[in-house]
Amino acid sequence: MDGLLWLNSTGMANGPVTFHGYDAASGVARPRGFGEAGPGELQRACDLAEAAFNTYRATLPEIRAAFLEDIGTRIMALGDALVNAACAESGLPRGRIEGERARTVNQLKMFAGVLRAGRWLDVRIDPSLPERQPLPRSDLRLRNIPLGPVAVFGASNFPLAFSVAGGDTASALAAGCPVVVKAHPAHPETSALVGEAIGAAVKASGLPEGVFSLLFGARHELGGALVAEPRIKAVGFTGSRAGGLALCAIAAKRREPIPVYAEMSAVNPVLLLPAALKARGAALGKAFVASLTMGAGQFCTNPGLLLAVEGEELEDFIVAAQAALAAAPAQTMLTAGIRAACERGVAARAADPALTTLANGPGGALFAADAASFLANPALGDEIFGPAGLLVRCPDEAARQQVLEALEGQLTATLHMDEADRELAHALLPLLEQKAGRILANGWPTGVEVCNGMVHGGPFPATSDARSTSVGAKAIERFLRPVCYQDLDQALLPPELRDENPLGLPRLLDGVPG
Amino acid sequence: MDGLLWLNSTGMANGPVTFHGYDAASGVARPRGFGEAGPGELQRACDLAEAAFNTYRATLPEIRAAFLEDIGTRIMALGDALVNAACAESGLPRGRIEGERARTVNQLKMFAGVLRAGRWLDVRIDPSLPERQPLPRSDLRLRNIPLGPVAVFGASNFPLAFSVAGGDTASALAAGCPVVVKAHPAHPETSALVGEAIGAAVKASGLPEGVFSLLFGARHELGGALVAEPRIKAVGFTGSRAGGLALCAIAAKRREPIPVYAEMSAVNPVLLLPAALKARGAALGKAFVASLTMGAGQFCTNPGLLLAVEGEELEDFIVAAQAALAAAPAQTMLTAGIRAACERGVAARAADPALTTLANGPGGALFAADAASFLANPALGDEIFGPAGLLVRCPDEAARQQVLEALEGQLTATLHMDEADRELAHALLPLLEQKAGRILANGWPTGVEVCNGMVHGGPFPATSDARSTSVGAKAIERFLRPVCYQDLDQALLPPELRDENPLGLPRLLDGVPG
Repeated sequence: MDGLLWLNSTGMANGPVTFHGYDAASGVARPRGFGEAGPGELQRACDLAEAAFNTYRATLPEIRAAFLEDIGTRIMALGDALVNAACAESGLPRGRIEGERARTVNQLKMFAGVLRAGRWLDVRIDPSLPERQPLPRSDLRLRNIPLGPVAVFGASNFPLAFSVAGGDTASALAAGCPVVVKAHPAHPETSALVGEAIGAAVKASGLPEGVFSLLFGARHELGGALVAEPRIKAVGFTGSRAGGLALCAIAAKRREPIPVYAEMSAVNPVLLLPAALKARGAALGKAFVASLTMGAGQFCTNPGLLLAVEGEELEDFIVAAQAALAAAPAQTMLTAGIRAACERGVAARAADPALTTLANGPGGALFAADAASFLANPALGDEIFGPAGLLVRCPDEAARQQVLEALEGQLTATLHMDEADRELAHALLPLLEQKAGRILANGWPTGVEVCNGMVHGGPFPATSDARSTSVGAKAIERFLRPVCYQDLDQALLPPELRDENPLGLPRLLDGVPG
Repeated sequence: MDGLLWLNSTGMANGPVTFHGYDAASGVARPRGFGEAGPGELQRACDLAEAAFNTYRATLPEIRAAFLEDIGTRIMALGDALVNAACAESGLPRGRIEGERARTVNQLKMFAGVLRAGRWLDVRIDPSLPERQPLPRSDLRLRNIPLGPVAVFGASNFPLAFSVAGGDTASALAAGCPVVVKAHPAHPETSALVGEAIGAAVKASGLPEGVFSLLFGARHELGGALVAEPRIKAVGFTGSRAGGLALCAIAAKRREPIPVYAEMSAVNPVLLLPAALKARGAALGKAFVASLTMGAGQFCTNPGLLLAVEGEELEDFIVAAQAALAAAPAQTMLTAGIRAACERGVAARAADPALTTLANGPGGALFAADAASFLANPALGDEIFGPAGLLVRCPDEAARQQVLEALEGQLTATLHMDEADRELAHALLPLLEQKAGRILANGWPTGVEVCNGMVHGGPFPATSDARSTSVGAKAIERFLRPVCYQDLDQALLPPELRDENPLGLPRLLDGVPG
């Protein structure tokens, strides 16, 4: 029997079955078969995307906004079929998947709002100054335009919110870029359902079919070929460091290099400052474990690294964390491969003579290292994707700062602090800003709000491009570039740039908003 | 005798003389000797830049604005000494150098204005929503921060405006990034004078000495080592395609890859549309030659490629261009190497049996190819840096569009058009937008206004990063990245993000300006 290789708004292609989704909890292969999209499907998706680009990018922002909202409506209309498939393929509980679905739909709505607000176009008008001396100034007008077709890689850990209709797809479609998604092979049925919903929205909105294509495949070759495709102009990826770096290397070697927005790995340091630790060490220990084990620790923002200064107060934290971890139930992980990698990482730490095992049970693990050992072994700063944490015991604040300085770039950095810690927090802030894209006080980094002010990004290797965020309103900026129009007459100018401002856009006139 | 290797606000280093500037007109070496900055100077510049970063970036925008203005004042105060050095080393006439000096100073002033206006910080505040269901929202605030120390490469063709105190330096300093400049070896004296002016401004502003360093050297190794330096976080470059790509490759291979903003090569197609050609073919031919030969054609935006449809009207253009080129005087070029490369390029075209030589004199050259020959030989789309143009004779509009489609990315694309050409222009616009960063009507691309709406950038290989501009207010964005602050209390937040808005910044509050 044939398996699905490719789909868009007008059709699909099938071919030999090469892989299946699995029921994550039981490990049993699910019945629906999928195949490996080949050069033909890839070519077709990119041909169509290129053909659709000019029509799609010329649509009014309102058309694209309504299209994004329609995708959300259609995702909700999939109802239990989608929730059940996502739960089965990911092993994530129903509540989480329902929450993620709401997040996905809200994300689409947010980008609809971004489109309507119009700031993404960054319209700037510098009118001509014919009398200026020594030379007149031309009429110069700037707007952003989309980069072109975008390749999006579904992420294993967010089968809805960072997958086929996730943040990368939503922001690229908002920008006016056709999207070619490579479905993550860990949730092909979920992907197919969402892909069909997007395809139906493309059709219902009267958009060209090339606006969206979904490719299936379980081998690295397909992803590499997609990034190498000359008609692809940018890439969105969330996944492993090895995977992200491989895509970056392919993109850099193209005849025309393209931006890759790869959100890769982070251990998201949490700094337990002395007064906070003293005031509520036990509570922090318990709350830490809740964050560490949430979703079986399978978050980019999982707090995998604790930095604390040695002392009695730290023991309260440890005891509470140990108790919480002892009570933490085993959880299904996304895939057998992810579970195996996590188990390997945990076993290596358990066997490392430089580390102390504070807890190591079915629900999660916590190890401890002294600062000198941590500094001596950079691999201790590597992420274990799963519910595994490392506490670095620092003899003093200077050592804590040294450890922080030695860290690679991170998505987040968290301070647990009280009033008496403020001076210390203030002193740490510049370093934290250089290390992370988001800094939290007295919270936990898991849980990434989709809003205007969010940054889900950070210095390398947290992401391949620290100038960007993959969550929140600014994510659209990844897929835009500015174009300047000099002395074009009103009728030739795009409507966004005409004097009468027919779209009612926010603009800078000679540098002044108005 | 020793030559200058390195300077900053507090001192300089000298070493063995390895190169001199040349009087471009006479080819005679100038007396002042310069040396090759080595690992010691590079290390020192980067140590100081790193040490200065947190202090410098924490200065109030007003401090940096005044600092930039002071640099401009000091450049003007150099008076004739600077103008004479720049004229001698570049061979550019006094009027041009004086104009470039004004542009350089205005550019510094513009970035002072950008700093004061505050939009560069992109402040976004999403206040907490403690009552939100199903989950409360944290308080989330975003601002841009600078990337870190920036390496800037002086360009040969703008010894002031794209060199030591040029657009890259001005925008990086405005962003809060310390700058390490590698002086272009074709104008070391000009560089030293401007570097001293910046150093004096650093000192007078009470800024840390590492805010600015200037390195001298004539070998590629120095530039490569600078880009490879782990403390350098971004690169600004204007120069050849080979040079820019070499720096991109070094940056991509770093343990922590960094953005390189390389403005490389372009032929800046000019489309002569039928009605305009008919109405004023001769005038266009004359004006074209004025732009082609301006500054001996040594502009990134030099109009090196003309696209026209065959016909009687085109002959008027050609005859006028030939006459203008015959009358064009020889001009001094920037360096002997640039002259030799230009002569080689012109000789190769003159010898190419697929090309017709329309003009080839001391003031400039113009060749013609039919569309089929152009399409058959992609090298005809390569830039000859100098006053050399190529006219592609297209049998019809479809062929012109094919030629356009075959072009690589460009800084500019120009339409010469009349009312009757509007429909055609409108149809060409989407393709022009995909090919270039700036689109002009009825002007010439040489002459790049420094303003809010300018884009001096474009798809690869015009630049290495089509998302950026190296001229105009948006150039500051190249050196920034966003950071989000979650639930930090008011006292810990940077002033830019506090509720009371002590800096009076423009902000987005829950997505709404206010």
